[in-house]
Amino acid sequence: MKDLIEALNWRYATKMYDPEKKLNDEQINALLEAVRLTPTSFGLQPFRVIIISNAAVRAKLRDAGYGQSPITDASHFLVFAAKTDLGIKTVDEFIALTAAVRNKPNDSFNEYHKMVLGMIANNAPEQNTAWAARQAYIALGTLLTAAAITEIDATPMEGFDHEGFDEVLGLKKLNLTAVVAAALGFRAAGDEYAKLKKVRFSKEKLFIEIK
Amino acid sequence: MKDLIEALNWRYATKMYDPEKKLNDEQINALLEAVRLTPTSFGLQPFRVIIISNAAVRAKLRDAGYGQSPITDASHFLVFAAKTDLGIKTVDEFIALTAAVRNKPNDSFNEYHKMVLGMIANNAPEQNTAWAARQAYIALGTLLTAAAITEIDATPMEGFDHEGFDEVLGLKKLNLTAVVAAALGFRAAGDEYAKLKKVRFSKEKLFIEIK
Repeated sequence: MKDLIEALNWRYATKMYDPEKKLNDEQINALLEAVRLTPTSFGLQPFRVIIISNAAVRAKLRDAGYGQSPITDASHFLVFAAKTDLGIKTVDEFIALTAAVRNKPNDSFNEYHKMVLGMIANNAPEQNTAWAARQAYIALGTLLTAAAITEIDATPMEGFDHEGFDEVLGLKKLNLTAVVAAALGFRAAGDEYAKLKKVRFSKEKLFIEIK
Repeated sequence: MKDLIEALNWRYATKMYDPEKKLNDEQINALLEAVRLTPTSFGLQPFRVIIISNAAVRAKLRDAGYGQSPITDASHFLVFAAKTDLGIKTVDEFIALTAAVRNKPNDSFNEYHKMVLGMIANNAPEQNTAWAARQAYIALGTLLTAAAITEIDATPMEGFDHEGFDEVLGLKKLNLTAVVAAALGFRAAGDEYAKLKKVRFSKEKLFIEIK
């Protein structure tokens, strides 16, 4: 495992992957487990992660992704999809899981159920989906950091035809919508972007201290 | 540094901090540097991070944060605030920084300028602020993962009066709005939440494989 800061300096949004180099099972399983363990509000995980290994599907996604080569050439390609149907069923399911994991009766979580439901019950569906998308972005941050420290290249990707992705992946009927994607793999030796200096605001610019 | 998966299992949304235990300079600097290095779309970092050490201000934030004790008792308290004024000035500034870091003339980035501006130019301000908020959530994911692997406790926090935070921190006049917060520190020995089993959906539930 790389040192944290060294790893974050090493990573970059990889533009060109070596199509011959694949993550081994241990590597991909660790990254997926990191995504599964990511913090989210209440731990509600209001999204699903689509892992696409089918080459024909990835070619279609690349078409809907303005031709970006990591979609087909990276070892793995993941799409984070927000749930579009957040409501009492979501909360029931989550409370049932909590009760099962913690070995308690469902109704010992009645207050908690009310609290979690309160967060989403009075919102318009679009508001809840926007909230679910933000939770998926936490998972994206977890994934990208996890990839960097385990020396795996990654490309976060917002720029794609979101409706196109939904259609190719059949997400609508699953009450999901694509919000962000990530390619994972190993940079090609010829990727010039690897050599560019990272651009970040200075500490003085980014942080505001209230002493 | 803890093993990644072990670290993510070890962490939890800490509810009770030991007010005597503070992060040392090396610890907080590493976490802030991780936030500074976080991936965002184009690296545009359309947010600022407010670090509040003033006790009176933290007490006011706690009032606006439904009394949650980590706001005052944790070693550090950070608020991620999205920029509300994304536009050509943001992009100009970003391109100037890019040109300076990479030692090239500003106008060699004209095409890139157009592309970055294209992403935000045609959106309503609320849309851009929602996008900026999502970028801040990537930074939150980076921070929480970084904290876990460096064995520092953290509490991500969405549940607060956002307008109240804006007012206490004077964010409106800085064209910022609070989107999410995080406390950092060390768990109190008596925090019962540390003992609860983590609740996460199974791999089978969370991941959808398209083979």
